[in-house]
Amino acid sequence: MADQPFKPVTTVPHQIESLSFDIIKEELGEHPFTEEQFPVVQRVIHASADFELGRSLIFHPKAIQAGIEAIRSGKPVVADVQMVQVGISKPRLNKFGGDVHVYISDPDVVEEAKRLGTTRAIVSMRKAVREAEGGIFAIGNAPTALLELIRLVREGVAKPGLIVGVPVGFVSAAESKEELTKLDVPFITNRGRKGGSPAAVAIVNALFLLAERLDQS
Amino acid sequence: MADQPFKPVTTVPHQIESLSFDIIKEELGEHPFTEEQFPVVQRVIHASADFELGRSLIFHPKAIQAGIEAIRSGKPVVADVQMVQVGISKPRLNKFGGDVHVYISDPDVVEEAKRLGTTRAIVSMRKAVREAEGGIFAIGNAPTALLELIRLVREGVAKPGLIVGVPVGFVSAAESKEELTKLDVPFITNRGRKGGSPAAVAIVNALFLLAERLDQS
Repeated sequence: MADQPFKPVTTVPHQIESLSFDIIKEELGEHPFTEEQFPVVQRVIHASADFELGRSLIFHPKAIQAGIEAIRSGKPVVADVQMVQVGISKPRLNKFGGDVHVYISDPDVVEEAKRLGTTRAIVSMRKAVREAEGGIFAIGNAPTALLELIRLVREGVAKPGLIVGVPVGFVSAAESKEELTKLDVPFITNRGRKGGSPAAVAIVNALFLLAERLDQS
Repeated sequence: MADQPFKPVTTVPHQIESLSFDIIKEELGEHPFTEEQFPVVQRVIHASADFELGRSLIFHPKAIQAGIEAIRSGKPVVADVQMVQVGISKPRLNKFGGDVHVYISDPDVVEEAKRLGTTRAIVSMRKAVREAEGGIFAIGNAPTALLELIRLVREGVAKPGLIVGVPVGFVSAAESKEELTKLDVPFITNRGRKGGSPAAVAIVNALFLLAERLDQS
């Protein structure tokens, strides 16, 4: 019997997801999140298996509403990296008329970053804010992208609908997110070094699901 | 002074990375990994800011060598999801003649999964093993993909060069990785629920860097 190969409880896609969500709810126990924030937290934990990351999330009071409004009015989503871009559900985006943009590999961005000796992430945000006013900016990787976006908001150049700022890392990640919480712009972020593309994707996809539900009710 | 905006230590890309690696090395302290395994562990921690995830990694004794050999002989990389595919460095891949394949959104895979009432991940592995013998299979998302790959190896149908199996989640993820460690095929995996696309990407990119260094020496 010891050599018997492992058999999964289920391989039916929607059963896997709902079983995961039940486990998360049970193990998370008490939490400080509102009813409208909870589905976002749940999806971040689902994507990371990391309760600490889930509990570290911080929401601007208008974040969920701002996200849903941006989606329902067909505003674009800007991703800092391709890993965030490809994770966001295309059928859902198309349903609302939006699109996901990523500028970090655009030839003009690459060239400008080289010329300035700075990150492509920074240059990509300068391009993004010109083209995606009112959109959702989803930053899962580069603290420098988030810091530049914050600077552009402060200067009145950028007018994002919602900033999903969950970059990961050891240099400036925690600090960039701390800075974000000082802005008077709707944001979803988290405390500390953790974060990442899957967290950014999970947050945006959770907002799309909330927007869909609203559409059906 | 309290209102002074945060200034990052550096925005020079290679400085950010080397500073991060120094922090990781210092904070990780003692660890059980060999000299050739350590760069892989370091890159996983860099991508996740999660020391627990880094420490949970397990290497088959021939894993690093098998990965480098697969890369240097231009074998393909198979990714379970697009998020893993896009994270893998294209210039490095092209240098060695390899390519990254992902089958999960292929129309024939989608259709077959629907017909069978199973995950697209499972069906995509059945297709992958026919087309990528000797390649690196990088699974960062779906436990069902890893379990199917393990089954196909046991049946003698799949002959991967290296399995990078770090799916994340609450249903079957930990168990699928435990199963992987029983195979007599080179693998890199980890214990527990955590994992994810960034971990899979970090491992594969670290192997490419090791292969490059060998090329230069």
